[in-house]
Formats: sequence, structure tokens, C-alpha cells
Amino acid sequence: MTWKCAVVNIPFGGAKGGIICDPKNMSRGELERMTRRYTSELIEFIGPEKDVPAPDVNTNEQTMAWMMDTYSMHMRQTVTAVVTGKPLNMGGSRGRREATGRGVMIICDESIKKNNMTRENSRVIIQGFGNVGSNAAVLMHQAGYKVVGIGEWDGGLYNSQGIDIAALWEYRQKEGTIHGFKGAERAGTEELLITDCEILIPAATENVINSGNAHKVKAKILVEGANGPTTAAADDILGDKHVFVMPDILANAGGVTASYFEWVQDRQGYFWKESVVNSQLEDIMVSSFEDVVRYAEAHHVNNRIAAYMLAIDRVAYTIKQRGIYA
Amino acid sequence: MTWKCAVVNIPFGGAKGGIICDPKNMSRGELERMTRRYTSELIEFIGPEKDVPAPDVNTNEQTMAWMMDTYSMHMRQTVTAVVTGKPLNMGGSRGRREATGRGVMIICDESIKKNNMTRENSRVIIQGFGNVGSNAAVLMHQAGYKVVGIGEWDGGLYNSQGIDIAALWEYRQKEGTIHGFKGAERAGTEELLITDCEILIPAATENVINSGNAHKVKAKILVEGANGPTTAAADDILGDKHVFVMPDILANAGGVTASYFEWVQDRQGYFWKESVVNSQLEDIMVSSFEDVVRYAEAHHVNNRIAAYMLAIDRVAYTIKQRGIYA
Amino acid sequence: MTWKCAVVNIPFGGAKGGIICDPKNMSRGELERMTRRYTSELIEFIGPEKDVPAPDVNTNEQTMAWMMDTYSMHMRQTVTAVVTGKPLNMGGSRGRREATGRGVMIICDESIKKNNMTRENSRVIIQGFGNVGSNAAVLMHQAGYKVVGIGEWDGGLYNSQGIDIAALWEYRQKEGTIHGFKGAERAGTEELLITDCEILIPAATENVINSGNAHKVKAKILVEGANGPTTAAADDILGDKHVFVMPDILANAGGVTASYFEWVQDRQGYFWKESVVNSQLEDIMVSSFEDVVRYAEAHHVNNRIAAYMLAIDRVAYTIKQRGIYA
Amino acid sequence: MTWKCAVVNIPFGGAKGGIICDPKNMSRGELERMTRRYTSELIEFIGPEKDVPAPDVNTNEQTMAWMMDTYSMHMRQTVTAVVTGKPLNMGGSRGRREATGRGVMIICDESIKKNNMTRENSRVIIQGFGNVGSNAAVLMHQAGYKVVGIGEWDGGLYNSQGIDIAALWEYRQKEGTIHGFKGAERAGTEELLITDCEILIPAATENVINSGNAHKVKAKILVEGANGPTTAAADDILGDKHVFVMPDILANAGGVTASYFEWVQDRQGYFWKESVVNSQLEDIMVSSFEDVVRYAEAHHVNNRIAAYMLAIDRVAYTIKQRGIYA
Amino acid sequence: MTWKCAVVNIPFGGAKGGIICDPKNMSRGELERMTRRYTSELIEFIGPEKDVPAPDVNTNEQTMAWMMDTYSMHMRQTVTAVVTGKPLNMGGSRGRREATGRGVMIICDESIKKNNMTRENSRVIIQGFGNVGSNAAVLMHQAGYKVVGIGEWDGGLYNSQGIDIAALWEYRQKEGTIHGFKGAERAGTEELLITDCEILIPAATENVINSGNAHKVKAKILVEGANGPTTAAADDILGDKHVFVMPDILANAGGVTASYFEWVQDRQGYFWKESVVNSQLEDIMVSSFEDVVRYAEAHHVNNRIAAYMLAIDRVAYTIKQRGIYA
Amino acid sequence: MTWKCAVVNIPFGGAKGGIICDPKNMSRGELERMTRRYTSELIEFIGPEKDVPAPDVNTNEQTMAWMMDTYSMHMRQTVTAVVTGKPLNMGGSRGRREATGRGVMIICDESIKKNNMTRENSRVIIQGFGNVGSNAAVLMHQAGYKVVGIGEWDGGLYNSQGIDIAALWEYRQKEGTIHGFKGAERAGTEELLITDCEILIPAATENVINSGNAHKVKAKILVEGANGPTTAAADDILGDKHVFVMPDILANAGGVTASYFEWVQDRQGYFWKESVVNSQLEDIMVSSFEDVVRYAEAHHVNNRIAAYMLAIDRVAYTIKQRGIYA
Repeated sequence: MTWKCAVVNIPFGGAKGGIICDPKNMSRGELERMTRRYTSELIEFIGPEKDVPAPDVNTNEQTMAWMMDTYSMHMRQTVTAVVTGKPLNMGGSRGRREATGRGVMIICDESIKKNNMTRENSRVIIQGFGNVGSNAAVLMHQAGYKVVGIGEWDGGLYNSQGIDIAALWEYRQKEGTIHGFKGAERAGTEELLITDCEILIPAATENVINSGNAHKVKAKILVEGANGPTTAAADDILGDKHVFVMPDILANAGGVTASYFEWVQDRQGYFWKESVVNSQLEDIMVSSFEDVVRYAEAHHVNNRIAAYMLAIDRVAYTIKQRGIYA
Repeated sequence: MTWKCAVVNIPFGGAKGGIICDPKNMSRGELERMTRRYTSELIEFIGPEKDVPAPDVNTNEQTMAWMMDTYSMHMRQTVTAVVTGKPLNMGGSRGRREATGRGVMIICDESIKKNNMTRENSRVIIQGFGNVGSNAAVLMHQAGYKVVGIGEWDGGLYNSQGIDIAALWEYRQKEGTIHGFKGAERAGTEELLITDCEILIPAATENVINSGNAHKVKAKILVEGANGPTTAAADDILGDKHVFVMPDILANAGGVTASYFEWVQDRQGYFWKESVVNSQLEDIMVSSFEDVVRYAEAHHVNNRIAAYMLAIDRVAYTIKQRGIYA
Repeated sequence: MTWKCAVVNIPFGGAKGGIICDPKNMSRGELERMTRRYTSELIEFIGPEKDVPAPDVNTNEQTMAWMMDTYSMHMRQTVTAVVTGKPLNMGGSRGRREATGRGVMIICDESIKKNNMTRENSRVIIQGFGNVGSNAAVLMHQAGYKVVGIGEWDGGLYNSQGIDIAALWEYRQKEGTIHGFKGAERAGTEELLITDCEILIPAATENVINSGNAHKVKAKILVEGANGPTTAAADDILGDKHVFVMPDILANAGGVTASYFEWVQDRQGYFWKESVVNSQLEDIMVSSFEDVVRYAEAHHVNNRIAAYMLAIDRVAYTIKQRGIYA
Repeated sequence: MTWKCAVVNIPFGGAKGGIICDPKNMSRGELERMTRRYTSELIEFIGPEKDVPAPDVNTNEQTMAWMMDTYSMHMRQTVTAVVTGKPLNMGGSRGRREATGRGVMIICDESIKKNNMTRENSRVIIQGFGNVGSNAAVLMHQAGYKVVGIGEWDGGLYNSQGIDIAALWEYRQKEGTIHGFKGAERAGTEELLITDCEILIPAATENVINSGNAHKVKAKILVEGANGPTTAAADDILGDKHVFVMPDILANAGGVTASYFEWVQDRQGYFWKESVVNSQLEDIMVSSFEDVVRYAEAHHVNNRIAAYMLAIDRVAYTIKQRGIYA
Repeated sequence: MTWKCAVVNIPFGGAKGGIICDPKNMSRGELERMTRRYTSELIEFIGPEKDVPAPDVNTNEQTMAWMMDTYSMHMRQTVTAVVTGKPLNMGGSRGRREATGRGVMIICDESIKKNNMTRENSRVIIQGFGNVGSNAAVLMHQAGYKVVGIGEWDGGLYNSQGIDIAALWEYRQKEGTIHGFKGAERAGTEELLITDCEILIPAATENVINSGNAHKVKAKILVEGANGPTTAAADDILGDKHVFVMPDILANAGGVTASYFEWVQDRQGYFWKESVVNSQLEDIMVSSFEDVVRYAEAHHVNNRIAAYMLAIDRVAYTIKQRGIYA
Repeated sequence: MTWKCAVVNIPFGGAKGGIICDPKNMSRGELERMTRRYTSELIEFIGPEKDVPAPDVNTNEQTMAWMMDTYSMHMRQTVTAVVTGKPLNMGGSRGRREATGRGVMIICDESIKKNNMTRENSRVIIQGFGNVGSNAAVLMHQAGYKVVGIGEWDGGLYNSQGIDIAALWEYRQKEGTIHGFKGAERAGTEELLITDCEILIPAATENVINSGNAHKVKAKILVEGANGPTTAAADDILGDKHVFVMPDILANAGGVTASYFEWVQDRQGYFWKESVVNSQLEDIMVSSFEDVVRYAEAHHVNNRIAAYMLAIDRVAYTIKQRGIYA
């Protein structure tokens, strides 16, 4: 997280914390009491200017609402900026849910521009139809990309003329699955990764592009919607094939950027319209893309290395300038 | 106030406090000392993140300046955001004085759009020429409405071709009264409420539209500039007549919204141009109008009920999500 | 500083503090320890809402970084807003370095508009090519002014057709001096002050326009980029000659205004694009220019007197309204 | 409470607060949650230097432990001094439980000295065998007083040779009642109040000495262990009979004095041996007795009036000296 | 003050502050408002753990009460320990008024013991009958010393058989002067300083023992009740004559020691009986006497030099051990 | 530490912290900077009411002075109570250095009383002549015990008539070792543990009394001056032999008790004479001894088990009474 934040140049750092438990076996009351006690034990460590937790697996808007309330009761005033990922009605940000998917699309936009391609001529295959994949698919479909493939863990869909993603979204809402959708034929998940397309977006799990399939990847551009979808070995193979890879710490940084926007709005006590959120997100994603690509070219490294170099440089330089007090 | 703030979706609540005294019989020194002691007794209860007092009857910008200074001396730093309604030179907001009147006009704009009417063809009668009424009149006149009637407690003016409000304003500044103004004929205050017009704006006192005159109201649209100008009985009669009523908690919420803007600017330490204040106000009033009307249509209730339902829903839902910290 | 801030209407005050020492004879470690101890002794007196130091002679971005870190360690959280003039990567503002020079140009723009002149027909002579002078020169050259003279302490340059300032800047970067630059002929520093031109910008040291040369000044407009370049006696002479003088507390207020923007951004935790900084700066400089000129005309005084009257009025009025808390 | 504290000259004031509920119908969990929420709502109002709650009817050591823990969790450190009446193991004071009874005895000691009587020749009748009465009885029996009567609401005991109170205590521990005790004969509660004795100690309920029985009281000394046992009318009658009355605000002030000692010990983090508590209590009770009696003699009023005069004088004088901070 | 506190080993330092004004020409209201504003400006600098002001010339218990109240209002709770010299009823200490005089007596006691003298055989002459001198005189008379002379600025009293100081005190209370007292004959102030006696206590003004009279001083022991009564030149002469000089920073340190006791009691919230104050004072004065005398003997210097050496040693050693936090 | 504090009933808990480094290879400057940074990182976790560090191996009074100063600089006021083990001149306690040894002696005193023995007839063997052992030896020798053996890691001393410990102490001061002392003959360290005596005090290292020598121990009373000198196996053997064992958590608790006294004095700002420290220590050690022995007899367990039962009971009971704040 520290490096991801540094790549997009937002004043956040990185750490994770949690409780070992099985929330599925706990009542709502137990979850609430556990969340509150956990929060109260963390009081000295969190705060709008210290550490700002956000939800992850097994936590949600309700969890963040409890944390916010607990912290606020201790502070004796409502402090919305202490956590992000809150419900809209208590200091959450518009546009947060789609932010990662939107960021993925923006990176695709910049990548095709860089490679002299157009939206209309870019066939896109997206692996994963969860929060990141589905939002990216909907937005890219709207924007004119031709989304030809969608992969889920239990099989995917393919339509060489492009899938009607809006229709697929509705279908999934109703049926709970993408399977059975009329507007495309079934396709194997693994097969989709190596199907012919301009843009491949792995947005599901880790290590799906590996030494076993990397040499068969046909996409010109690979945008990592998930964390760590490409193994180190695959990275080298893709490099040799001149695939334009957009690494996760840049490509899926839209989520943490939206968290940052939520924090800014809470600190201001002033909330942005969704269009403002989206345009701020675009500003940040675009200029971060440019920073990374410029760095890669200047240092003759691939985009992933460039992103890490950039991030580490920024953090190290700041630490050095601040110095050590006593 | 709680419901009014909830309707326009600003993060404020509601409460009132005061001192039993007769400020007319007190010297400036006494008023200052009393205000300061009152403020110092409230120190634990007020604050930019706790409770933010604003002026009401018998208090003014000077009162708020004293409160701000007293609080700041206790905090050992200038805290402008602790109160609103301050003078411009110490953290007040541009556009605050006209904000309620401007909000009334915006609600009129939306109401005519909703009812397929135009400014030019809308004759307006405004009861009251105090802060709310006069500002609404000036702004609506500028905007192209035909303001045909102005009522004061001791009689009003009427001109079927429209009154030149700019001229009336100047006249009143000079003469201290609207009476004697050449550009209109005298009219009874009560009579004006039932005179033919498209828009009626009661902006003076409570209960002026009541069971005694409601059935005679000829306006198509009634916008409550004052608090509680319509009695419950009158409300039913107006409903039967399909008068489009914009309830006070929406129609005159422009004032508290400007207070909110003042608070935001103070927290940011950054002050908006008047045009920015006005456009933000428009955004909020318009979308609140839409929320209320949508709610009314969805639940088949009148606008007033819809506004309360909306407000209570928002507050209740938030309380439920925050929960009770044992 | 108090009056300068009041003229541009930003919520800052004025004070100076320092340590008697010779930083040239101190190691980096000594400078750091001294800066930190100085900061820790000031803890109770500084703070984002109390007093916000900025760098001056012999201090720089690194100094401010140490101060910020020391204060933050004491506050137990990062408090970027406690000082301004920080490096960009730890809460500094884009556009800060050029802000004074840009402000000078804006004042020139307004001055020629006021005097019905155009950029293209305005020959400019700038004394000083330090931070203020060089930035003003570059920006004005870009904007279409004809910069005909540049003076340094050890002689200047003159070209009646206008000097290519972009080329001069590059030359100076390379050579460390402006002397020897091909695109202009040498000229005496003193001589430049009395050379024919429309706009004269003394941007170096104090008292350069004095009773000895004021009557020979040929410029129509004099914009004080430096602090105190004109003596009181010279002021009278320039007044008699109807030179349009823009006093330092207005003309070079761009720097403190940028400091204010840095503080606002730090408080928001949200950082502006350079274009935003520049346009905000223009807003403030233009409206301050208008305030001063309007005041001068209304009270029949020169611009300098008007600027002071305006500033003192604002501060005095605010103090009176706040009152004294026993 | 304010006057009681002023009489014994301890730096406490007076106020009461509570929750309307029936603790008998609440589970331990409900009581705990209610106590904690109540405490957290009071956070701003209580504190070792602000307001220090102590238990009263329907609250006990456990209640105070919960309050202390809740406050401490909010303060992020253990703050024992925020309440008194805590269990010994978490900052309670030794000797607190017997303090009121012991105070009653000390007042008896001083009263007999003042009236040239001796312990051995003083027959004592105590109405009430609750916390105050039973502790007074045990201590006075030990000290050599001849306790001849004990009254409970459902009848009492009498033995003209003195009751063996140690034996009675044990009997009551075992049997849960004083009735059936062999070492005394039964006596009516009302009758005991007018039975011959030197010292009468009403230590049960209000208004037991009233115009109906005051003239029949045979005691020379009346020490009010309960609050308000004597009506105003009775007071006059006793005055006429020259009964030496020790008013409640002095006589039963031992309890609040022990609370004060608990607070002092918590602030010091240092806990006194029981003998120290007892001797400090004696110092305070004795000197307060002397103050009251001296005041009564100097102003020719009875002891009750003297106690109130003394208390009001002390509070009023202090308020006047502190003054009002505007 | 720093050295005086170090000699008696109490954890206080030294500084003075004040307002330039003439309190004799100010009303009580003006004095109160001035004192309160002065205190509120000092809020950050004073406090029970920071700097604890005490009264001096032109300030009194009332002044300290106002300071305490002002500070407490800012702290939102009563903070008695912020100043000393308060009235008894709001946190002052018993025995404070006589403390300097009592300290002088204790130093006399130790000095005679050291010099194998007895109280009965020690004739004492005291110059000054103000707070220090009169209290010392009363206490020493009670203790068995033979006080043979008392000097005031306008003449003194002498009785070779000893003056009845208790009677003199009463006389002065009644008459407002010591002159005219029957129990002694008049004596010149200057003359008294050189009259035969064992102990001379200058307790009035500076420089009264100087090169002009030092060689005529007949006392064996000189105890400085005032600050600086002996000039440097006189000090040498007394040294040559082997007069046992007790320097001011030890001899009159009883006052600041009592201030320290007041602070301790306020911090404890627990107040000492006068006998406790007196015995604690004796402990400190005696052990400080012993420290100084031991130091003088060990380093072969006179008592004054020894006192300063001891004080500076203590402060320097502590500073060195604490070190400088960069 | 938690259990040790609970046994002696002082309001402290237990935890350890440290830095991995080799202080022997660090300069004084490095030690100071490391200590200060370590302290500043701990700021949120330590404090007079939170956690109060004390020195242990490789840290000393100077370390604690640096910690105190660093914490105080962050708190902006001197906070002596934040650590214990400080130098006397900055808030340390008299009697702290000898406290553990004195506590050992007090436990010996109580043990012989309990076993009907006398000091004069009690031969004592002490293993270890470090801080604990040497102080215990000196004090017990003074008190009349016959100290017949002293063991060091490289051999010991024995004199059946008793060693002159005062002389031995001086010898060691001069020579740096106990070897070569004339007043006793050499003895093996191991041998001393099983030499005939009434009281054996292992005050050096862990596990010295083990299954290999426990059955040969001849002492009637074993007082653990060191932590953990007796193995579990040896404990059983000693139990079978009816040796009266005083466990470490009681026997050497004098040190932490003195730390507690230092903390109390710092909180009071009032410092005790050494005699007061010693008598308070005796009170606590004696009553803790009685608690443990009473517990052992009541539950038919040995003293060590009794001490742990008592400690755990106290902690558990308090936690249960405080409860968990959601």
C-alpha cells in the first residue's frame, strides 16, 4: 500500500490490521461489540492525521460506521475522517464503489493513446466480474471499447462482436451468475487469457499469468486490475514479447485514491458531486501514468520496475528531507 | 432545524439556546459581557465539530463576533468555525444575507419548471418585505419574474403590470417604509394573499394561510418563505385544490445552507467568491427539490409530508447504522 | 507583513523571528540541531491556527522540512500546515517559487489596463534578476511584454528591441551570470533606472529610487518588486510627475499569498494543480489592485497611502468588532 | 451537600443525578450497560477536578467500579479519583463504610465533653440499625457508652443496663433481624424516642422527632445520624427545652468526609492505613464541632442555625473573592 | 529566587513578571480586569507544573484569587495550584504569613547551637517591624530569646532587659506605630545596628550594613531577614571580625518554602494543620542550614559563598544530567 | 512483575521493553540519542498514569534522567513521575538503592518471629554481594544478625563467629573484591549454600538451589533475594524438609515498592525523609508477609503457592469488578 500510494502521490501510507475470527459464525451483535472493542484499543494509533483504516475482505460499510462511531464517542465529537469506506450518509464519498474499475479504464485509455490505438478498435478481455472487473467492463463498454470476453472462476463468455455489458450486468443482477447469458458463447477461463485481443485485464486472483501461459498471451496491453496477477517469470516473458504491462500498483490504485478523496471531503466537511470525484480521479490516474511511463523510458526499465523506482524514490527522498529527530 | 438540515442534506443538526433578558434595555457593554459569559459557560458544548451556533432574533453579526472571540480566547487560537453569521472580515461568508431569499427564488424556478410555467408569465405575490421577502423580491424581479404584489404588516402594494422592485428597494432605503411608493397602488395585506397570481410567497409570520382563507387562495404555487405560514387545516384545503406547496423546511433552507457554507470556508481557511456561494446554493436547493418531489410522487404524498419523510428517513437510517456505543 | 496580508485580504498576520548565528560556518548537522531546538522552544507559539513561519534569508525548504518534522514529532502526527515554504513532496505548493514574480506581472497587467496601455507597447526595465526579478522577466516576456532592460548589482543589459528573456535565463543557468549574453548590450545599473520605458520594476534592494534620481525616472508605471525601493522623498517627486506607483505591500504580495495557498492546501490535505494556484493568485492580486485603486480615488491619495489606509482600516475594524475579553 | 461540605470545610460541592428506572427489574448486564452509557454521556461534566460522583440509594461499589472503568477507558488511563465509594481493591478507602457512624460517635464525644458528661454515664438510644446506626452502636459500645436502646422500623430493644452491641451485631448477622435477641427486652420504636436517656440518635428516616413527640423527648443531647429527622416545629420545642441538638449537616458528615479522603488518596496514588483515616476523620469532626459551637455562642443562635450560617458564609465569601470572569 | 530555592532544595525556579501601572490610582474593577487579562495572556506559560506565580509588592491574596479564578475558567476546572499566596479558603496554606519570620527564628536557633549559645543568653536586635521582623520578634520572644531592640525607619526601641514583644505587637495594632510604647526607651535606628547584642537581624531594607558601620557591629551572629542588607565590602569586614553571617538566600527562605508547601497541599487536595506546616518548615530550614555550614567548612569559605556554591552546584548538576534534547 | 506488585498490593503492573544493542560499544552521545528516540517513540504508551518504566540491567540513573527529560520536553513541562530510578536531584527517592536489601531483612525479621527465633541466634549466609546481597548484609549485621557467610561467584568467606560486614564493605570499596579480607576464611560458593546456618539468602543468580543440593541445605529459613534461585524440584525437597521458604515475589519486592514510593513522591511534588521511606517499606513488607502466611495456612499450601494465589486472586477479582467496556 505504501508504494501504491506513493505512485499516485497521495499522502497516505500502508499497514494492515485485523482480528482472527470467523465473522460468518458471529451474530451482528457480536460483530459490533468486537469491532468497537478493537477500535477502542486502537484509539491512540488511529485518527484523521495518523492512520485511517479502510475496509477489506470481511469488513464493509457497516463495520466502518461502527468504527467511526466508536472513535467519535471517545473523541466526544463526530470524526468522520478517521476511516474511509463509510456509508454515503455518514461521510462516505460518491463514486467510491466504481473507483477501482474506473481507474482501470483510465489506465487503458492512456495505454492505447500511448500505443496509438483507439477505443473502438480495442478488443478487451476481462478476467473477473467482481467489483473491479464488472465496473471496469460496464464503464469501458459505455465508453466505446469492444469487450469481447468476460471470465469468471467457473467459466466465461466470449463474443467476437463485443458483449452487451449493460445487458450482462442486468442479467447477472437477476440471475446471480453470468452463465446462461444469451449475448455470448461460453468460453474457458484459462482460454480467455490467451484469446486474441488488444487489452487483457486480469481482475480476479493472483498469479493467473504465469510461465505456463505467458508466451501464449496475445494482448498488446495488459492492465492488472487484480493485485499480483502476473508472476515474475511471466513478467519477463511478456517483456520479451513487448506487451505493454500496466502494473497493479498503478492500474488498480483507483480504490485507494477514492479513499483519499473521502478523507479530503470529510476534513473539509464538504462533499463532492460524483462528476467531481470522477474528474479528480482521472487527473491523478493520468498524471501517475505519465510519471511511470516517463520514468520507464528515462531509465530503460519496464513499467513495473519504473513504478516501484518512482515510489521508493519519493518515500526515501521525503524521509531523508524530514530527518530523524533526536 | 434537524429536519430542515436533513432535507437539504447538510451535516448539521438542530437546537436552540438563549438568555432571558431584554436586550433593548441593556448597554452595549452589558450585552458584550453577557454574551461572553454565556459563551464561556457553553465552552464544552460548542465547537466546530460539536455545535455551531448561528444568530437569530435579537442577535446579530456583532454578537457572533463576541462569541467567536470568547471561544477563541479559551481555545488559545482563532477558531472562526465555531459560530456562523459572523461579519465578513472575521470569517463570514459572502452571499449569506441574501441566501434565504435566493433559495426561495431557486425553489420557485424549480416549481415552475415542474409545472411547465415560465418566469415571464409568473405573477408573484410576496407577503413580507423583511430579509427573506425583500431579497427574494429583488432577485426574482432581476430574474424576470413579474412581482405584482408586496405585503407588509400594515398594508401592501399591488401593480398588475409588475412592481419595479429595484426602485421599491431604494425607496424603502430612503423612506423607511414601502408606503407612498409611486409605482404601485395600495392593497390590503390579507387581500394580497387571495389575489390572483401564479406564485404566492408568505415570507412574514406564522399561520397566515389558514382555514379562513385557504379556499380563496388563487396561486398555483405556494412557496413558504416564512416558518409555518400554513396551518394544518389550510394544508388540506390547498391539497384538495392541487396547489403546489413548497414547505418551509425546504423552501427557506437557503439560510442554514449558507451557514453551512460559512462553516466549510472557515474549516478550509479559504473563502469563496460570491458566485461560487450562489452556485453551490443552487446545486443544493435544486437537488433537494428533486429529492422531495421524487419522494412525494413515489409515496403518493404531498410535498410537505414527503420532505418530513425524507428527513426522518435520513436521520433514522444514520442513527441505526452508527448504533449505540454501550 | 501584517499590512501586506491585510491588503490582499488573507487571514495571516506578521512577525519575524530568528537566531543570531552564521549559517555559513555551520555544518549541516549543526544547522539541523539548531533548527530543531529552536522549533521545539517555539512549540507553544506556532501551529496551523496560531503562527505559521515561512522561510526568509538564510533559510530554505530544508529548514522548513526540519521545522515541520520537529513540530510533528511533538504533536505525534504529521502537521504540514505549521510552516510554509516546504518542499513539494511534504506539503509544499506548486507555483510557490514563481509566485512573487507572477504577482508583479499581474499588477503590471492591471496597471496598463488602468492606464489604457497594452502589453506589446510596454517596454519594461527590471532591476534585479534574483527570484523576483527573473521570474517576473520570464513570465512577462512570455506574455508579450517587451523587456528592454535587466539590471544586476554589477551592471545590466539593454536592448531597445526587447531582450529574449528565455534565452537569457538559459544563459545565466549555464554561465552563472548575465554578463556576456549576446542578445543585448551592457548598460549601467543606475542608468537603467532612468532609461526610457513604460514600466520600471525595481526588484533588488531598498532605496534605489531616491531624491537623487527620481526626477529623471521616465517610466509611466513603477511597480515595486522589492521591499522599500522608493524613498519617501522620491515618492513625492514621482507623485508630482504623475508616475503610477504600485507600492510593495501590494506589488510583491504574491509570495505571501502563495504561502497562504500552501497553508490552505495543507489544511485540506488536498493539493492544487499549478494552473489552479496561478488563477487563484490572479483573482486575489486583481481584486486587491482594484481595492487599492478605488480607495486612492475615493480618498484622493496616492496608491501607497491608499494601500496602507485600506490595510489599517481592515485590521482596526476587525479588532474593534472582536473586542477585548477581560 | 454543598452546606454539609462547607461545614466540615472540605473542597467538595453538591449535586445529585440519576436515571429513572427500577434496578430490581434489571439484569446485571442491563445495569452495567446503563451505568456505562450514563457515565459516557457525563464525560465532560465529571472528573477528579470537576465533579466526583459517589453512590447513593440503589447504587453500590460495583456501580462505582463500572463508572470508574468507563471514565478511565475514555481518558485512556486509569482514573480512580473520578468517583468515590469504590471497592478497596480499585482505589477505595479503608474505613469508609463505618465513617458516618464513627463521625456520629465523635460528635457525641464532643457533645458530652461540652456538657460535662462522661461516656460511662451516658445512656444512648439509637433509632435505626442500618449502616449509620449499627456502626455508631458498635463503636460507641466499644468506647464505653451504655447503649440502652436500639430501634428498628418494626420495633426495638431496650435494656436499662446497656445492650451488648457486639453480641447483637453477630445475632443480626446470623438471623437477619434484631428481634429475638436475648440480651434485651422488646420496646416500641416510637416509645424509644421518648425513653429516658442522655443521648438520642435518630439514624433512620426523616421527621421522626416532630411536634407530636418533641416535648416528650428526655435526652439531653440529640445527634442527628439521619438526614432531617427533626421537623422545624420540633426544633423550636427542643430549643425551649435546652436539648443540645447536633444537626445532620454536621453530625452525619463523616460519610462525605471519608469520600473526600478516598479522593485525596486516589490523587496521591497512596493509600492510608485505617488508623490514619480514623484519626483524620476525628480531626475534621472535632474542629467542625468547635467551629459550629463557637459560632452558635458568638451569634446567640442554636447549633443548626450556626452550622448553616457558617456554611453559607464560607461559600459566599469564597465566591466573592474569586469574582466573575466576564 | 532560583538560588534561594536551590539552597532549600525545593523544586521551584525563579522569575519575575509584572505590569507597569500605579495600582493606587486604579479602581478595584480596573485592578481585577487588568489582573485577569494579564493572567489570560500568560495562560500558556503558567500552570501547576510550569510556573507558579506568587504575590510580591503591590499584589496580595485578592490578586492571587483573581489569577486563580481566571486560570481555572480557562482550564474549565478549579486549579488552585497555579498560584500561591491565595486566601486560606481557596487553597492557601496555614502558617504562610509567619513563615519568613519563623524561618529566621529557626536559623537563629541553629546558629546559636552551632556557636554554643543559648536562647536565654542571646540578646536580639531586629531592624524592621514589618511582616518579617515583627513575626520573627513575636516568635523569638515566645521562644525565650531576649529581644532588646527593635528598629523602624523612623527610630527604634531599646530595653536592655528585653522588650515584651507581645505587648508591643498589641500596642502597634492599636496605635499604628511602635513609638510611644512604654516598655522601652527610644533608640536611633542606626545606633541599634551597632548596639551590643548576640544576634542582629536586619529585616528591613538593602545595604544597611555597609563599610560605614560594619566594623562597629558588635553582634556575634548576623541573620539577614531582608534581601541584601549587607554590602560586599561590609561582608569582608564582618568576615575579618568572625561574625557568623547567615545570608539572605538561606535566612529568609521560609517564605518561598511556605509557598512550596501551599503548592504541595493544592496538588494533594489535602491541607495541613498549622503544626504540620511549621514542623515541615523546621525540617527544611534545619537541614539547609546544615548543608550550608558543612559546605562552608569543607571548602573553607564563608556561609554566603557556601550557599551560592551549593545552589549553583545543584542546578548545574541537574541540568547536566538532564541534557539537551535536540 | 504483575504478580510481585499484586503481592505487595501496590497499584503497578508489569511489562518489560528494551533495545537490542551493546551499550558497552556505544559512546555516551549514542546512548543518549538512542534513549531519547526510544522514549519519544513510546510517548503514547508511557506516562505517570499509564506505564512507568524503571531501570534494569544496562540502564541506570542517567538513562532514566534522559527518559524523563525527553518525555518532559514532549509534554512541555517537567514530569518526574514518568519513570522511577531517577537521580535524587531530579525526583528520585531517598532509600531506593538499599530498598531491596532492606526488604529482604524485613522478611527475615518476620520469618524468625514466626518461627520463634531471634536475630542474635540467627546465623545468616548470603550468596551474592551485589546490590541486594551487600545491602542486606550491611543492614542485617547492623541489626544484630550474625552473618557467617558471604558467597561471590568466585568464592566466598566464612566466619563462624560472624563477619564484620561494615569492615568487609569498606574493604571491598577499597580493593574492588571481597577476597583477601582478613576477618574471615575463604569458603567455596557452592559449599556455603549447604553450610549450617539458620537463614540462607540466595541473592545472586537463578537456579542455585536445585535438585543437586536442596536435600543438603541446612538452613531453617530460605529467603529468595534473587529472582528464581530455587528450582521447582528443589522447592519440593525443601518443602519435605519443612524449610520455611520466602519466595522471590515477596522477598525481593522491596525494590519495586521503593519505585512506587518514588512515583508517589513525584506525584505529590513532596519528598520523604529516608526514615519515612524505610518505615513505609516496613509497613508494606510486614503486612504482605502476613497476608501470604495467612493464605498459606488457610489453604494448606506453601508460601510460594500462597503468594501466587494471593496475587492472581487480587488481579482477577479487580478485572472482574471493572468489567469490559464494549
